[in-house]
Amino acid sequence: MIVVMSKDATKEQIAKVEKELALLGFKTHPIYGEVKTVIGAIGDKSNIKSNTLLTMPGVERIIPIMKPFKLASREFKQTRTCIDLGDVKIGGEQVVVMAGPCAVEDEKSYMEIARCAKEAGASILRGGAYKPRTSPYSFQGLEEDGLKIMAAAREATGLKLVTEVVDTRDVELVASYADILQIGARNMQNFRLLQEVGQSKKPVLLKRGIAATIEEWLMAAEYIMDTGNYNVILCERGIRTYENTTRFTMDISSIPVVKELSHLPIVVDPSHAAGNWKYVPALAKGAVATGADGLIIEMHTNPSSALSDGPQSLRPDNFAVLMKELELVANAVSRTIFKKDQQ
Amino acid sequence: MIVVMSKDATKEQIAKVEKELALLGFKTHPIYGEVKTVIGAIGDKSNIKSNTLLTMPGVERIIPIMKPFKLASREFKQTRTCIDLGDVKIGGEQVVVMAGPCAVEDEKSYMEIARCAKEAGASILRGGAYKPRTSPYSFQGLEEDGLKIMAAAREATGLKLVTEVVDTRDVELVASYADILQIGARNMQNFRLLQEVGQSKKPVLLKRGIAATIEEWLMAAEYIMDTGNYNVILCERGIRTYENTTRFTMDISSIPVVKELSHLPIVVDPSHAAGNWKYVPALAKGAVATGADGLIIEMHTNPSSALSDGPQSLRPDNFAVLMKELELVANAVSRTIFKKDQQ
Amino acid sequence: MIVVMSKDATKEQIAKVEKELALLGFKTHPIYGEVKTVIGAIGDKSNIKSNTLLTMPGVERIIPIMKPFKLASREFKQTRTCIDLGDVKIGGEQVVVMAGPCAVEDEKSYMEIARCAKEAGASILRGGAYKPRTSPYSFQGLEEDGLKIMAAAREATGLKLVTEVVDTRDVELVASYADILQIGARNMQNFRLLQEVGQSKKPVLLKRGIAATIEEWLMAAEYIMDTGNYNVILCERGIRTYENTTRFTMDISSIPVVKELSHLPIVVDPSHAAGNWKYVPALAKGAVATGADGLIIEMHTNPSSALSDGPQSLRPDNFAVLMKELELVANAVSRTIFKKDQQ
Amino acid sequence: MIVVMSKDATKEQIAKVEKELALLGFKTHPIYGEVKTVIGAIGDKSNIKSNTLLTMPGVERIIPIMKPFKLASREFKQTRTCIDLGDVKIGGEQVVVMAGPCAVEDEKSYMEIARCAKEAGASILRGGAYKPRTSPYSFQGLEEDGLKIMAAAREATGLKLVTEVVDTRDVELVASYADILQIGARNMQNFRLLQEVGQSKKPVLLKRGIAATIEEWLMAAEYIMDTGNYNVILCERGIRTYENTTRFTMDISSIPVVKELSHLPIVVDPSHAAGNWKYVPALAKGAVATGADGLIIEMHTNPSSALSDGPQSLRPDNFAVLMKELELVANAVSRTIFKKDQQ
Repeated sequence: MIVVMSKDATKEQIAKVEKELALLGFKTHPIYGEVKTVIGAIGDKSNIKSNTLLTMPGVERIIPIMKPFKLASREFKQTRTCIDLGDVKIGGEQVVVMAGPCAVEDEKSYMEIARCAKEAGASILRGGAYKPRTSPYSFQGLEEDGLKIMAAAREATGLKLVTEVVDTRDVELVASYADILQIGARNMQNFRLLQEVGQSKKPVLLKRGIAATIEEWLMAAEYIMDTGNYNVILCERGIRTYENTTRFTMDISSIPVVKELSHLPIVVDPSHAAGNWKYVPALAKGAVATGADGLIIEMHTNPSSALSDGPQSLRPDNFAVLMKELELVANAVSRTIFKKDQQ
Repeated sequence: MIVVMSKDATKEQIAKVEKELALLGFKTHPIYGEVKTVIGAIGDKSNIKSNTLLTMPGVERIIPIMKPFKLASREFKQTRTCIDLGDVKIGGEQVVVMAGPCAVEDEKSYMEIARCAKEAGASILRGGAYKPRTSPYSFQGLEEDGLKIMAAAREATGLKLVTEVVDTRDVELVASYADILQIGARNMQNFRLLQEVGQSKKPVLLKRGIAATIEEWLMAAEYIMDTGNYNVILCERGIRTYENTTRFTMDISSIPVVKELSHLPIVVDPSHAAGNWKYVPALAKGAVATGADGLIIEMHTNPSSALSDGPQSLRPDNFAVLMKELELVANAVSRTIFKKDQQ
Repeated sequence: MIVVMSKDATKEQIAKVEKELALLGFKTHPIYGEVKTVIGAIGDKSNIKSNTLLTMPGVERIIPIMKPFKLASREFKQTRTCIDLGDVKIGGEQVVVMAGPCAVEDEKSYMEIARCAKEAGASILRGGAYKPRTSPYSFQGLEEDGLKIMAAAREATGLKLVTEVVDTRDVELVASYADILQIGARNMQNFRLLQEVGQSKKPVLLKRGIAATIEEWLMAAEYIMDTGNYNVILCERGIRTYENTTRFTMDISSIPVVKELSHLPIVVDPSHAAGNWKYVPALAKGAVATGADGLIIEMHTNPSSALSDGPQSLRPDNFAVLMKELELVANAVSRTIFKKDQQ
Repeated sequence: MIVVMSKDATKEQIAKVEKELALLGFKTHPIYGEVKTVIGAIGDKSNIKSNTLLTMPGVERIIPIMKPFKLASREFKQTRTCIDLGDVKIGGEQVVVMAGPCAVEDEKSYMEIARCAKEAGASILRGGAYKPRTSPYSFQGLEEDGLKIMAAAREATGLKLVTEVVDTRDVELVASYADILQIGARNMQNFRLLQEVGQSKKPVLLKRGIAATIEEWLMAAEYIMDTGNYNVILCERGIRTYENTTRFTMDISSIPVVKELSHLPIVVDPSHAAGNWKYVPALAKGAVATGADGLIIEMHTNPSSALSDGPQSLRPDNFAVLMKELELVANAVSRTIFKKDQQ
């Protein structure tokens, strides 16, 4: 940690800050510049207390040197984490594709979507049974009935299930059905929910908040990992910017940045990022070429009748074409797309 | 609702969209422009289904004409809502000041802060017993012990209490202590929590999410109001932008915008917006002159030792000076600062 | 400057960086932490070369300690700059109001607006003769004919003139008419234009770019000041964010931040920030209460027929009411509104 | 154009707006909804005057139906524009790579970089002779001497040249050396400069402003095209967001969006977007997979000594590896990388 003193800081103020740092357990190394003094403080105890130094007279700025996340960092674990779901592995050499509708609407349509997803080569089914919707007047999901439909689709196809949980009180129930628990963007800093899904020991797909920095996102992963559950999959789904031709701005750079800072796998959701199915194939290919470990894509047999997010859903025919294109792109970057029946 | 057809839309496509709109219960009014056709659709049934029209061939864009929020809108209720907490009223002619530390740390310091707050003229005490912190390694609050300390301070000073609740499972407990339940920025779209605080019937201070549009913020209020609890106080606390000399960018324009769109009272939190106590007095005065119905300000007797957000806390002496200045600014815009003992 | 070495940096890499710093003229002070080494480098030569250190093996991050602006900083000049335009002074105890239409359209209407502005108490007339418009098909301004109209209005009212210049080739001409040269938001980093208006020796109103940090804005002022022209007035006019109920987000916090970092005066343009005349009075009062040294407000006798930015223009009657309200707010923060005929 | 009247609009106000629209040359089609009236106005005359309707009593909102850009739109020209620079073509089936240092520093190093660029398969050389720098104290470029060095490199390698012009007064000179004139992000709305480069008839590489919407970017292209110069290459180079692990956020979605809205070619600059050479290869591959028509990449033989933007420059060895990888990715999306000597 570096404490920058203001130009006008007095010797007494500098001495007081050094004393305070010593009390907090740091070794101090002052550097007297031509204009300002800075104090190096060794022994980063976490940032709990240090930012209160800012309130001491003469202190201009505190600069942390260590990252605030530990378990999620590459400094903690150098090798990349590969999450094992039985036959499917996320974070390994193969790229994993998750597909399905935004919301589970009824058994018949979900089963059909599930079959299309499998046929085209997806290995994980998505679908929402508990939907966080901006409006209280929108469809909120089928809840446990939706989970049962998903379980039936797993039974029929052999694909794994990822589904969102939105309330601490539902974690146990949702975990009893899902293979991966999804934390949505709106709940990325719902810390109680993070702790609860951590304790469930299920793998967690952690979506990035719409205005979360990569550091905050990794800190959210840290909350889950701090419970002893290290199976966290990061999911980039677009951040909010001023640009409005897309619903969010897909931050493709987060792929190499996350890979540099963390050992956790990262998947990309081009459907929510774009908010428009027309842009999804281009973005999906871009994400794989950039190094994503997987994709989560909305697909619906009848987007016009979807109860949620129809406009961003691919139809099964477009999805099947995309899967073929993705195989080529994956190969170009020395990877393959995981396909269940080819294992 | 206006449906804009693309330049290349065929007559058949236009006819299909009209038919679909009719099925959804709309009366349609096509307008054939020189380049594009647009279809006016009358009878806004809420936006549940209409955006799926986007997926129909030939449809370029859907433009809603009605706002998605109803109960929170001025169209629903023309007169301004004034929330009655006994002697203190929020949203009336008087400006209300809430003050206190970010987190309740121990009884002695909290009681002293409470006394300073009262003496300077605050009418509501703030203080966090459940703290949502970016890092799992930071102080997370005293939980019920903190609430008990707050209740003791209310007893001693007669001031009202506002405190945050972060988990659906805690709402009943927190509501048994608090006069106002606070929903923090990170939970603005934790819809289950919104419904739960709605059902508690307690007044709710609803902080704006760091990347929430004003429309989304009002939709979050709508979730609470939809439970029958109309006592919602909106709280502007800064939005996330690229500018980094302040922690967030206080969106002062939200004050007149909210007053135009909604009947709900709006208060401002300059402390979290700025993240630096030095800017708080200027921003607090600006907020009152712009029309805020209240302020929520962090104050601590010893910011250097605060367990959370010390750098943005005013000391009691600075807070007392600010309260005198705020009185002058409030008078300049034909209001006064509510003070308990002058009622 | 602080050079942070990565966790894996070797002794050799650290030694090489120290050697390079010495070559660049810095004295080095390494601090060996438990995990990482940081190197303090004293003797800030400006940041010209130092960021290339980033490319050296083992270097993780460079942290500048000194601000990059010098002439614009309070460290360079402690007392606040007050720009003297004859009877009007900007940056002193009095708050200055500039008013007028977005574009000069014709002599008759401009003269009428000028008279209304003066009558209500404005001291400087605004008006664009060279308009930077997003569309090449929009009205681009009357050019020198517009400047002549403005000069006639100055003659008739005694008010000073502020007008924008958009091309290096026009600076001399515009400077021969204007009392203050305006640099628009789009040209804040048109460095050649900054140098040219600097050399004109005229006071410059420097609008903040729509995505400029406060540091970049002060660096733009630095370009002007580096020519020897210290008469720079900063103008906050809103930044671009995701929020779209207002055209831009007025960054009111920039007022106290600029006052802390710089000695230059700061004025606020609530009209361009809001893009809607209805919000202008509230924002104008907020800006004065927060500490702005002046306001620049769009006013038009017939906003419905304005060739540019009509929707954000106040009518003279609303402007006159606002001026009375501003007087009260200015008094509440121990200032007055400058009025020509009361001097 | 759709005019939305407010809920409280009177019959007289609606009639007045209809009358005003008729005066402006529109045919009007009112639709009387249950709550609000909207008026469809046919005969979009451009948006010059229409937004002033906003100031008429009873008008709530104006919704344009037509895009404001014409020449740049796919509605104007359906086939994709392919810009012919002799042997190199931009916007065709082949992907074009431009490479070189941020700034031209001296002949020896530039010639060496040029040779490396050619050898690895780049077809266009980049290099700045006029540098817009945030600080007046930074290296500002060699000006005409730099252009002469670039011309010598073209002579030696046969590669084409792209270089930036920053002042209307320099356009003629720069155009006499360059094959493509670059408009930097800071000058995207320097409309005089756009008009001047338009009149030069040289192809123009138009970088997106750091906070420009795609619509504004296309409007800037429109300024150039309005002079009769249709050879505009759009260049995505990252937009400013709150995320700070990269210098800007590369908006990869702009590729499919631009391809949908416009016929102009789009290239991507991953170096300026990321600000860190380590992320450039991943982003470059992602851009090609997403559909970019080209890349512009910073490369320097000795990044540590670069006078500008060293940290984001690839070394020749890394660049050569990347070129091989790009070939594979281009093939995966049915394209090839243009290589001079293979034609």
